[in-house]
Amino acid sequence: MSLSSPRGTSDIFGEEIKYRDFIISKAKDIFKVFNFKEIITPAFEYTELFDRGIGEGTDIVQKEMYTFADKKGRSLTLRPEGTASVVRAIIENKLYAKDLPLKLFYIGNMFRYERPQKGRSREFWQVGVEVFGQSQPILDAEVIWLLNSFYKNLGFKNLKLLLNSIGCVECRPSYIKSFKEYIKPRMDMLCSDCRFRFDKSPLRIFDCKKDGCRKILEKAPKINDNLCDNCVRYFKSVKKYLDSLEIDYEIDSGMVRGFDYYSRTIFEIISLDIDSAQNALAGGGRYDYLVKEFSGPDLPAVGFAIGLDRTIIQMKKLNISVAETSKKKSTYIVTMKKDYYEYSLMVMRLLRDNNIICDLEYENKNIGPAIKKAEKLNYDYLMIIGDDEVKNNSITLKDIKKYKQYEIDLDNKNRLLEMME
Amino acid sequence: MSLSSPRGTSDIFGEEIKYRDFIISKAKDIFKVFNFKEIITPAFEYTELFDRGIGEGTDIVQKEMYTFADKKGRSLTLRPEGTASVVRAIIENKLYAKDLPLKLFYIGNMFRYERPQKGRSREFWQVGVEVFGQSQPILDAEVIWLLNSFYKNLGFKNLKLLLNSIGCVECRPSYIKSFKEYIKPRMDMLCSDCRFRFDKSPLRIFDCKKDGCRKILEKAPKINDNLCDNCVRYFKSVKKYLDSLEIDYEIDSGMVRGFDYYSRTIFEIISLDIDSAQNALAGGGRYDYLVKEFSGPDLPAVGFAIGLDRTIIQMKKLNISVAETSKKKSTYIVTMKKDYYEYSLMVMRLLRDNNIICDLEYENKNIGPAIKKAEKLNYDYLMIIGDDEVKNNSITLKDIKKYKQYEIDLDNKNRLLEMME
Repeated sequence: MSLSSPRGTSDIFGEEIKYRDFIISKAKDIFKVFNFKEIITPAFEYTELFDRGIGEGTDIVQKEMYTFADKKGRSLTLRPEGTASVVRAIIENKLYAKDLPLKLFYIGNMFRYERPQKGRSREFWQVGVEVFGQSQPILDAEVIWLLNSFYKNLGFKNLKLLLNSIGCVECRPSYIKSFKEYIKPRMDMLCSDCRFRFDKSPLRIFDCKKDGCRKILEKAPKINDNLCDNCVRYFKSVKKYLDSLEIDYEIDSGMVRGFDYYSRTIFEIISLDIDSAQNALAGGGRYDYLVKEFSGPDLPAVGFAIGLDRTIIQMKKLNISVAETSKKKSTYIVTMKKDYYEYSLMVMRLLRDNNIICDLEYENKNIGPAIKKAEKLNYDYLMIIGDDEVKNNSITLKDIKKYKQYEIDLDNKNRLLEMME
Repeated sequence: MSLSSPRGTSDIFGEEIKYRDFIISKAKDIFKVFNFKEIITPAFEYTELFDRGIGEGTDIVQKEMYTFADKKGRSLTLRPEGTASVVRAIIENKLYAKDLPLKLFYIGNMFRYERPQKGRSREFWQVGVEVFGQSQPILDAEVIWLLNSFYKNLGFKNLKLLLNSIGCVECRPSYIKSFKEYIKPRMDMLCSDCRFRFDKSPLRIFDCKKDGCRKILEKAPKINDNLCDNCVRYFKSVKKYLDSLEIDYEIDSGMVRGFDYYSRTIFEIISLDIDSAQNALAGGGRYDYLVKEFSGPDLPAVGFAIGLDRTIIQMKKLNISVAETSKKKSTYIVTMKKDYYEYSLMVMRLLRDNNIICDLEYENKNIGPAIKKAEKLNYDYLMIIGDDEVKNNSITLKDIKKYKQYEIDLDNKNRLLEMME
């Protein structure tokens, strides 16, 4: 039997883990100062949640979900995104009953059955935040601020924030009507996907990447020019707060983003250092009606999701360093005989109990090859345990970088520990 | 629509997150000093991996897997445990080609379709380690040492380590023969599950919890009394190393553990403070043949898995504290008017840029209720921004615990930051 990981998925190890750890630790640090708390939802949900939450007209629900039946015949789906699950969780657990706004973040794997390509896997990781219970523009500004600071803290420099408003229940219906009036005589020129979208979810046409459709969209009426007074005023406040935070933005009036649940403010952050269609690092928006649509209370909300895999790819391209800053020294240990394993365990116990990284050479090599291996594995010292050392209750420590050697009496444990500082 | 999380799954938030963070951070700390590196595998695999890896005679493969077909008809299964995936990953990515032993750890959600009960969910989290490429007893002792230290670091006190050897390809076949000879005349007294196991995987009968079967097992021959010389010698060395590490253990000759892939040393760690059948916190063992069975190289291996959810339940029962030790002070901010939001953003930016936890009262309450809320949410200060403060370019800081109040000029930013130390 020769097995591989399922198509479109992969294993994460080595360097990838360093980037991941770096990003997640930076994210958790900033979430803490912005007062967000973690929530973890199951990897799968009842399928209905996504049908209703993400929108039946979206590509995700139409084509990309991993759906299966459990042994009782109930339809389950691996989560294709994080928001619908978090909304379900806050309703089910009545998290809205405590102090509002509720500020949550999640880190999790998501699943979409798409054609695998670089930066787009069938299992991918997202870091996201959601704020529930306030419909004030300062919160839109705050989550955008959080997103922007996160990328700056990671070391990204040339970022651009794209901003748009897609209106509310007041102004969107009349806009959609005029948009459909513009599209209708041009239906023949749209791709088959977009013709399908026209009925189900017309704003999704803006997500189309095909040249023919994009050309038609250029001259289409834009939602941003057709907002009601409340939405105009709201959007103005968001921009005012971003100005006061000295966060630059650019209005992108053709941006709608790929979910049906958004209302008013939507945004994306892109890296100008990346010359590619995949320069979007993260995006989000306000979704004031979703909680209610799930039979929850009337809880306005705003949030975003960060593509972890894509962020890693771009950090590598930009040569952003994720080097660890470990203070204590580390040592590789070689024993001259297997009989000295128990002796080495005693030393290893002393070191590890004091949080000092050490490991044993299990092949009982000679000193020469052991030094080479310790050097290759980036240890600071090679510790030698041979006949003399065992007789004297000592160890020999070779400083690999300085070519110095010390014999240390184990009766004086502090001496050894000091050497490792 | 009213939706819940799928049966047997749940959301993790609030206090649960604190326990999780505490456990995972302690685990990562100790993995580092023991020189283990993280690996993350996909949430699902081709089903064949688990059929072959875990064993077709096991309860997991027989009854408990979430199996489904992708759009091309390939059978996929949500991972019911971590080891088979890690083995597949090291073969596929040729991780064994570098320096051996390869010491890996994983943290992930696993899925089993079982009857949900306290401490047993259909989605559950495991932390595990696997060591590949060495069949020396010192490594068995080392992973047991790691497991034992991990629980001691968490704050567990009365731990018991159960140890057994279930032999190797040399001695197990003849033992199984004599075990079957003992069972055969008693088949009628076994439960139907065990009668099925008798042919497929007879050692699994030891996993049965039913009284009738347990009674028959009491007098059955034990593998531990029927080891070959090599296995006896190996087991003796494991015990010797544990002795030298001053780790207590108890031989449990009836223990076989629920996977077919184990060989030689197996172990479990239980909490003596818990009076329940679910007192097992973690377990593992050696599995020298599994990598080869997956068409990989001849890589002996040893590892264990920790039940994260069960560990949390038991930490709560034992009142083990996971209190955070945050040094910097935190502040809640209230503005007397919405017009002062921009002013408050300027202050929040100063604080958050300096990693100080702060948040805004979005309801513009009066000072009295705002103090109460800040107190309830456990902040150190309430910061007040009103007419006077904005006029004077200052803020007022109320120390909630000491009932003291300070007006701080914002021209002197350092004064404010010092207050937050």
